Amino acid sequence: MSLLYKHLRVHQVFGANTDVGKTILTTALVRASAFTKPGAFYLKPVSTGSMDVADDEHIKRYTAPWKDRVFTECLYRYQEPVSPHLAVKLAAEQSGHSQPIIPSDETFVASIATHIRGCAAKIKQTSDMYVETAGGIHSPTLSGTTQVEAYRPLFLPTILIGDSKLGGISTTISAYESLVLRGFIVDSVLLFRDKYYRNWEYLQEYFADRGIQVTSLDPPPELLANPSENFVSTQQYYDSLMTPTAENGILTALKHLDSCHVKRLQELDSMPRRTLDSIWWPFVQHGLFKEEKDVNVIDSAYSDFFSIRTPPTDASSPPTSLLQPQFDGSASWWTQTFGHAHSSLTLAAARAAGRYGHVMFPRATNLPALKLAETLIHEGPGKGWASRAFFSDDGSTGMEVALKMALRAYSKRHNLDRASQKTLGILGLKGSYHGDTIGAMDACEEVGVYTCEWHNAKGFWLEPPSVSIQKGKVVVTVPPSIAGDTATRHEMESLSWTYDVQKRLSSELATVYKDYLRRTLSSLQARGSPRLGALVLEPLVMGAGGMIFVDPLFQRVLIDVVRNAEATPPSSTWSGLPVIFDEVFVGLHRIGMESTPPLLGVNPDISVNAKILTGGLVPLAVTLASNSIFEVFLSENKADALLHGHSYTAHAVGCEVANETLSLIKKVIASPEYTQAQQRWETSPGEASTVWSLWDPSFIDAVSRMERVSDVMALGTVLAIKLVDDNAGYTSHSAEEVFKPLLAPEDDRILFSSPGGAPFGVHYRTLGNIAYFMCSLTTTRGNLQTLEDKLWQILIPK
Amino acid sequence: MSLLYKHLRVHQVFGANTDVGKTILTTALVRASAFTKPGAFYLKPVSTGSMDVADDEHIKRYTAPWKDRVFTECLYRYQEPVSPHLAVKLAAEQSGHSQPIIPSDETFVASIATHIRGCAAKIKQTSDMYVETAGGIHSPTLSGTTQVEAYRPLFLPTILIGDSKLGGISTTISAYESLVLRGFIVDSVLLFRDKYYRNWEYLQEYFADRGIQVTSLDPPPELLANPSENFVSTQQYYDSLMTPTAENGILTALKHLDSCHVKRLQELDSMPRRTLDSIWWPFVQHGLFKEEKDVNVIDSAYSDFFSIRTPPTDASSPPTSLLQPQFDGSASWWTQTFGHAHSSLTLAAARAAGRYGHVMFPRATNLPALKLAETLIHEGPGKGWASRAFFSDDGSTGMEVALKMALRAYSKRHNLDRASQKTLGILGLKGSYHGDTIGAMDACEEVGVYTCEWHNAKGFWLEPPSVSIQKGKVVVTVPPSIAGDTATRHEMESLSWTYDVQKRLSSELATVYKDYLRRTLSSLQARGSPRLGALVLEPLVMGAGGMIFVDPLFQRVLIDVVRNAEATPPSSTWSGLPVIFDEVFVGLHRIGMESTPPLLGVNPDISVNAKILTGGLVPLAVTLASNSIFEVFLSENKADALLHGHSYTAHAVGCEVANETLSLIKKVIASPEYTQAQQRWETSPGEASTVWSLWDPSFIDAVSRMERVSDVMALGTVLAIKLVDDNAGYTSHSAEEVFKPLLAPEDDRILFSSPGGAPFGVHYRTLGNIAYFMCSLTTTRGNLQTLEDKLWQILIPK
Repeated sequence: MSLLYKHLRVHQVFGANTDVGKTILTTALVRASAFTKPGAFYLKPVSTGSMDVADDEHIKRYTAPWKDRVFTECLYRYQEPVSPHLAVKLAAEQSGHSQPIIPSDETFVASIATHIRGCAAKIKQTSDMYVETAGGIHSPTLSGTTQVEAYRPLFLPTILIGDSKLGGISTTISAYESLVLRGFIVDSVLLFRDKYYRNWEYLQEYFADRGIQVTSLDPPPELLANPSENFVSTQQYYDSLMTPTAENGILTALKHLDSCHVKRLQELDSMPRRTLDSIWWPFVQHGLFKEEKDVNVIDSAYSDFFSIRTPPTDASSPPTSLLQPQFDGSASWWTQTFGHAHSSLTLAAARAAGRYGHVMFPRATNLPALKLAETLIHEGPGKGWASRAFFSDDGSTGMEVALKMALRAYSKRHNLDRASQKTLGILGLKGSYHGDTIGAMDACEEVGVYTCEWHNAKGFWLEPPSVSIQKGKVVVTVPPSIAGDTATRHEMESLSWTYDVQKRLSSELATVYKDYLRRTLSSLQARGSPRLGALVLEPLVMGAGGMIFVDPLFQRVLIDVVRNAEATPPSSTWSGLPVIFDEVFVGLHRIGMESTPPLLGVNPDISVNAKILTGGLVPLAVTLASNSIFEVFLSENKADALLHGHSYTAHAVGCEVANETLSLIKKVIASPEYTQAQQRWETSPGEASTVWSLWDPSFIDAVSRMERVSDVMALGTVLAIKLVDDNAGYTSHSAEEVFKPLLAPEDDRILFSSPGGAPFGVHYRTLGNIAYFMCSLTTTRGNLQTLEDKLWQILIPK
Repeated sequence: MSLLYKHLRVHQVFGANTDVGKTILTTALVRASAFTKPGAFYLKPVSTGSMDVADDEHIKRYTAPWKDRVFTECLYRYQEPVSPHLAVKLAAEQSGHSQPIIPSDETFVASIATHIRGCAAKIKQTSDMYVETAGGIHSPTLSGTTQVEAYRPLFLPTILIGDSKLGGISTTISAYESLVLRGFIVDSVLLFRDKYYRNWEYLQEYFADRGIQVTSLDPPPELLANPSENFVSTQQYYDSLMTPTAENGILTALKHLDSCHVKRLQELDSMPRRTLDSIWWPFVQHGLFKEEKDVNVIDSAYSDFFSIRTPPTDASSPPTSLLQPQFDGSASWWTQTFGHAHSSLTLAAARAAGRYGHVMFPRATNLPALKLAETLIHEGPGKGWASRAFFSDDGSTGMEVALKMALRAYSKRHNLDRASQKTLGILGLKGSYHGDTIGAMDACEEVGVYTCEWHNAKGFWLEPPSVSIQKGKVVVTVPPSIAGDTATRHEMESLSWTYDVQKRLSSELATVYKDYLRRTLSSLQARGSPRLGALVLEPLVMGAGGMIFVDPLFQRVLIDVVRNAEATPPSSTWSGLPVIFDEVFVGLHRIGMESTPPLLGVNPDISVNAKILTGGLVPLAVTLASNSIFEVFLSENKADALLHGHSYTAHAVGCEVANETLSLIKKVIASPEYTQAQQRWETSPGEASTVWSLWDPSFIDAVSRMERVSDVMALGTVLAIKLVDDNAGYTSHSAEEVFKPLLAPEDDRILFSSPGGAPFGVHYRTLGNIAYFMCSLTTTRGNLQTLEDKLWQILIPK
């Protein structure tokens, strides 16, 4: 991850193309740094086929007057003047090895990061460092990954060497745009002042509009045949670039780079105060977080990690990077799918923005929205039951749409008058959460702090039985209200069995549930109040309500009872009450399955997806509906229509990103890491479990046996640990306190599993006495293992 | 705008760099087309400095066997082998002209489009056309605009000629990404099979992952000194590319391009049916729009125009493009700011996606969100009163947040119990609209069709006086309930005077308003029900409620009366009722001013912005609050916090796009077009009007005098025309019927103001008997003039 030091300014040098003068201009920069500062570092991670001398040798030769201050290094060197990915293969062939030894991208980045950290530790005085890449910005590095992608985890500020030849305006701008697509900070463009093509004139203006300084420098002299003459002429050239009279010379460029560095440091330092002065955070009591140290400054993010500002705690210790990796342990509020800043999603967003911007949706269509609707209905969570997709902006608005659909369907069928429509209630579960707009809130109970002035809960909420792992046993806990005379604690034979709803339908517990639900619903009906208009469920897991893993059998039986499934044959129209599945949190593989209906064995009439829908990039929600719901709104009268919409409905950017997400998910779930995780949960070799998790089953088992732990559960990417705590509830901070050591990076190993290998802390969120940890679908076992170790260390009795 | 013909497949040919073999591979394609089809068209819009022969001459020479079928053309030719923007300057210098004649981008695109239209009309049989660009994709064209931007309005499918030399992997991928950023469809990558660098091997795999076919072809033979020998060898080379045995030869590439064309046509044709089968549109009665012709298929968009599918109505007429421009007359539901697909916004979105993806916001910060909050508070709509920015996803959620803030402030001050909190009402105006989530709806009356089951309006809504232009006069119409014995119709001396609120405060009407409001509010207070907890206003214009231009004096007096402004000195805490300004529609220059407080002369306590906030690209909303509101939620108790949030709160992409938007707006409002429009509305030369519009004042005046028109009003980008109609209301389709001719492009001129110069229809939206037209901040006078003409033609008595 990012490296940033106050005393060591590090820039990476990318070229708009190969042969644009990258080494010459970097040499000029190293000389200028050596001339003005106590240290100048040069790193050429990969060097291929220098005809004359290697790049780092060239630098050494022409910075000889400051040889005590100049430190050059090359990590991987190949003789063949071809792209590095090819050079490594050719080198293997030449040396008689058929299989080249290719460092992985992780190793590659870690070795660069280690080198930078080493330099930062070596020197205490203000110094500069240049990391020169090979070829053009998208030239493949050793593994074949293009450089601009391979260097991204380090997020170093960038100098782009422009192309001064014919066509160079184009290659320079395109290279710049590829850098922008990876979020890089481009501080400077340097190029030769070619008098014939005059690219610098055009580019100076072009980049000035974009706030980037262009420095143009005289081109080098022609290569002379006589080496010593050539040396002299080259040295004279380099000297000429440093003369104070040289218009726009290298010292000006250096000064600008220094000022960019200072500005960046100042900006980072000012961000906590400025944030405390201007931002109103969601869900945060500002009275409890009013110190600068309370602000997590996220400078950039990559994969599962934030790069956060970490001011040095001890001035006497060796200088550490002001930016440190932090594992995004809440998957950025449950949205991340492939980690941050995934370039396929960025390109998808760019593609739609470039083709459409946002275009009108009612009575219109565009390809990204149409494709997304079709995929969701025919191959996604709507498969087998949904006929229509209605787009909105977030889970909360998606649920408002769902509620409008369901309540209209019920009202129409029962011919309700306006007064009855307004008080129509929701049948739901205690602990539900559907979002923060008033309609979504009104579908949930008014309990605890999660309420507000206009919150006016309408409905009836049942206390659900739940599943958890306690001391190595899978337990279904049935509330006394349901259990009656029967047991409240049911040890299950396995997690897989617990989620085998079809088989459990004939269990005793199914009868207990059925009897209870029939009794309860009959008495509600007899009482006549509240009159219920929809069944609304978060299938399997109620997230915001406290990571409650609801017994799936209970939800299934509830749906059957509501639909009176035994009495009426399965029908294409909704029966009893319209059933809404709020899959905003659980949907699209968050809990290890695309959608919950297959597991529950029943389809909803309406469902809502969001969060993972866009892979964790931009807001978008979709409400899917069966044809029987759609037809309720169908007439020749506008007043019957679903009069709901948001300006950016089905915005092309969101839909295209969602399409890319769904297509990438297909690849991920077929990947070896995913398969291996599933295998770890097999009930017996080759026998898949009904449910599984990316978290390790033996870790889950072990944690569940710990003294301080009351319950554990894991499904898919979600791990929830409930602590033994008397003062539970949403306002409790017990879990937050216990897990605080996670925030601090442990510095007891050589190399860590973060990109670049730095030690890292973990960002996490708690719900009272429950801490939950959530990863993306692509989080590596290495990182999960590190997290599991950290959690273990915290929970183990001291 | 886009051109697409069934019988004529048109591809543009872009190069990853200059000198990558663009002309050679295009020649090979033209030959292959000529060999297999009745027509092959080649267009080189700009040609610079061919050393040997010009590109089009080269094509002619090597397609001689099919000379009856090959049509080549070059529009602009320059001798100097430099970038076109430089070539045109040098040519001027050489010919003794100091000022080069540089065609504007509009002329450039129009001449290419005219040529393509001409070719399509000339030939009836299946043919191919290649438009070969000059240099690399970002090489500047004649005006200096880079080519990829200049060609964007035509949105032609693209062939990218890859770079087979060292560094060519990088330049090819970067060029591809620059094409993606403009939304281009890249059908094919062609490059030479250089055996040493082997770029094609890498690129084939790279692009296969992205669904793009790469064809590699043998490189051309070396140039021979003897012209006739060279001709023979070159011709042999071209022939070799066409042999059926040639692995991956040019005929394979041709076949692929043909299949892409067919697929694109089929996809477009299938979209209406598929949309009708899967999409649930917002605000649309599907029962009224169930034919394929009812679906507006938007293939792409650019500037103020959609490119829409327009199947030929008459098979016998000359073939017209299947895609036609359509003016986006509702600014895509009131969001567009600079027109569609503006590359600065695309790059801003890409930059944030590449740097952050989406990152956790509570207790955290990121630069785009922080900068946006600061800009809005210190330099934007919050200037002078706001202290905090709370982010959410759309206008509706932004208003829910605002209501939660206001109701809490009121409840706390008055120590309300839960029951009273729930029934707390809103003081508002009849015709208000604040969004479609239940909380936002409950702040509005239940009238007309715009309601739903749970809609339970809480509050009291006053009927407001309104401003309009009737028969050339500016009239304030006061409802009888307010006017009492005084006049209901007030002819004002001018529009500028009408909006000079400060001056009008001492007018008689101000006293009428004040008396009425004091009386009404006292009687409400005496009655005790509903108890009011907030004043909520859409300042100046109520959009969705029917484009009602409310008399600003009435809103100002209302705020003063509610705050009891005369009795208490101006205070830093809210007084009377917290005041919310819903500026979602009117804010950020939609009606010609950044924000409404300066005009009204009072600040709100809370305000909401969305729509233009992100320049019309992605959803984002912000609720701004004064410190006095923020402090209500401040304590050491989490339960007191504003417990509201959405997963993608302050998503970096939205915030960065918003920052770019606010910065671009600064440039736009300083532009000559903007200044000229303001000058047209001056009350006397040099005397600015308090309000103004991009629409022409004399057009407004003339329309207001027409027989069929009851009222007209225009502010900023908004024009509203109210028709004389007895059957008004939201379900009325009268305006929709009257303006239907707008949909059809008028074909009575040579060249039109759309990019590319094709005739265009106008997409528009109506609210009952009101038609409104909305442009972006950058819509040209030419386009507005065309619209004004079209409207005039429709309204003029026949």
